[in-house]
Amino acid sequence: MIQAKGYAALSVKAPLTPFAFERRDPKDYDVVIDIKYCGICHSDIHMARNEWGSSMFPMVPGHEIAGVVSAVGSRVSRYKVGDQVGVGCFVDSCRECANCKRDLDQYCLEGNTLTYSSLERDKSSVTQGGYSNVIVVHENYVVRIPNALPLDKAAPLLCAGITLYSPLMHWKAGPGKKVAIMGLGGLGHMGVKIAAALQADVTVLSHSENKREDAMKLGAHHFVGTHYQKVFKDYANTFDLIINTVSADINMNDYFGLLKTDGTLVSVGAPEKPYAISPFPLLMQRRSYAGSAIGSIKETQEMLDFCAKHKITPEIEVITPHSVNEAYERVLKSDVRYRFVMDMARL
Amino acid sequence: MIQAKGYAALSVKAPLTPFAFERRDPKDYDVVIDIKYCGICHSDIHMARNEWGSSMFPMVPGHEIAGVVSAVGSRVSRYKVGDQVGVGCFVDSCRECANCKRDLDQYCLEGNTLTYSSLERDKSSVTQGGYSNVIVVHENYVVRIPNALPLDKAAPLLCAGITLYSPLMHWKAGPGKKVAIMGLGGLGHMGVKIAAALQADVTVLSHSENKREDAMKLGAHHFVGTHYQKVFKDYANTFDLIINTVSADINMNDYFGLLKTDGTLVSVGAPEKPYAISPFPLLMQRRSYAGSAIGSIKETQEMLDFCAKHKITPEIEVITPHSVNEAYERVLKSDVRYRFVMDMARL
Repeated sequence: MIQAKGYAALSVKAPLTPFAFERRDPKDYDVVIDIKYCGICHSDIHMARNEWGSSMFPMVPGHEIAGVVSAVGSRVSRYKVGDQVGVGCFVDSCRECANCKRDLDQYCLEGNTLTYSSLERDKSSVTQGGYSNVIVVHENYVVRIPNALPLDKAAPLLCAGITLYSPLMHWKAGPGKKVAIMGLGGLGHMGVKIAAALQADVTVLSHSENKREDAMKLGAHHFVGTHYQKVFKDYANTFDLIINTVSADINMNDYFGLLKTDGTLVSVGAPEKPYAISPFPLLMQRRSYAGSAIGSIKETQEMLDFCAKHKITPEIEVITPHSVNEAYERVLKSDVRYRFVMDMARL
Repeated sequence: MIQAKGYAALSVKAPLTPFAFERRDPKDYDVVIDIKYCGICHSDIHMARNEWGSSMFPMVPGHEIAGVVSAVGSRVSRYKVGDQVGVGCFVDSCRECANCKRDLDQYCLEGNTLTYSSLERDKSSVTQGGYSNVIVVHENYVVRIPNALPLDKAAPLLCAGITLYSPLMHWKAGPGKKVAIMGLGGLGHMGVKIAAALQADVTVLSHSENKREDAMKLGAHHFVGTHYQKVFKDYANTFDLIINTVSADINMNDYFGLLKTDGTLVSVGAPEKPYAISPFPLLMQRRSYAGSAIGSIKETQEMLDFCAKHKITPEIEVITPHSVNEAYERVLKSDVRYRFVMDMARL
């Protein structure tokens, strides 16, 4: 076994503490990754506090992992020692279902194996994530980080980046399309950058007026402050596509009204309670409300290549892993512009 | 003016009573229609009771109108005296907006003029519907009823028929597609017939086990009783398209789980209160929840031609207009298989 160290929640809602654990020795197709950076995703906090009811402890969170290959199994063909690589939200899937077979492994019908707090497919152990110095992953679930992308800035692409890239591509953001991004946080700011690179006309919808300047700097063409109810009338029937990155409970019916006929609003996150949704604003203009979760491994690779080509990286604040608990508090207060990334070498 | 007679609600929630009123004399492009049959739609009841808050009284309901042209304005080119024609849910629209210009006049951005209880575009009067002996409509908002369709059975196609035809076409029901229809009433039974004619694999989802036999007779290939919670597990990830014709408050999240990856559930009606909708079942398989309202005039004509070609007609119970109030009570108890049609000659 490989001796690993990291930060873990030992029980529900406990502060994260230094933690020693083991990784499996690499099997034939496994890649051993020396983790250099790991992003802090809001879902790490949900999971550490068992807010979705599926958590297992002790838990090493982290699914925005960027590092360098330090060893490979005997039959690994895609990666070699020294390669820049990343690991995102899942590290395995059934590989057999209709979705796995058509490169939609993020929607594996048997459920994919999450990067942390998930039972391995052979049920031998529980996965542990990227708040650590090393991880061992089957090569099919590893992606290549182009050399043009620095590892610290690449880390958040593995979750925040792909979570926005996938719906923007699926719902065809591009020239001539009016795209709105709801919320300008870790996810939202990636949405702005990617949608702008796709040449869509990009609007940020936010009730934080103080994000207006940032929105424009990040590449948005318009900023609409949603703290005025009037905007829902002024901007009725405006957008082809709205991506909702806000996980607070909001009046979705207002936002549906901002869509054009046949437009789609896509949620990439969820509040704790269900939304109160009336079908009327949907059926009055044949609008759709959809959901999207991360992206496939293939699409994640495409996204990384796209970001390298278009020089897209997140805005990050690099911190030491020892300040992870303070970082969590700041994430909860939206006091980060726009993503914390831990320098795992300082572990 | 043309003297008309019919049945009207004189005030909110009042029983319908015989009512004399006037129709405009035909203008250049108007068609005068001798109404032969008018269907009773559940929305007539909602409107007569002002349950959607937009009703104006006195109100002659009715938007499933089948009749024969009795006179035409001087510049009418599409219809002549004696033609079988129909009028559906709207009798005018702005004719100028992007949607009107691309044959999506059901989604007129200025709001279309409903067949009854709607202000005419010149604000001169309030429209009155088909529970009457005559109606005057601009030829652009009149459709031709093929001679192969009997007028009594054609009437419900003008609302129930198009309301199901439009989403089935838009979301591409057809060979190889698994389509479910939620609810087997006036709308649902048309959905079954049309989806079957489109060669989709058709399932009825209903919590009325006693509709199983009817469902199969109407052309469904499967019937799933949704009074057992277990079916939501057994049929998870099954359907490409689900059309919800049920206006009661139900747990939509259960039904989302029945959709395949990228599947769509479409509501064509709405309960009084909003649904409690969690984004999770949508985002876990990139599913969509959409709404659809009736269809365009052009599409309504296509639907009538389709129904004539495929010999599709609703199951109806023909009644005299004098029993309209009893019919309303029976509709509210779902005690009709599957649509009341009033014989307006017996007025």
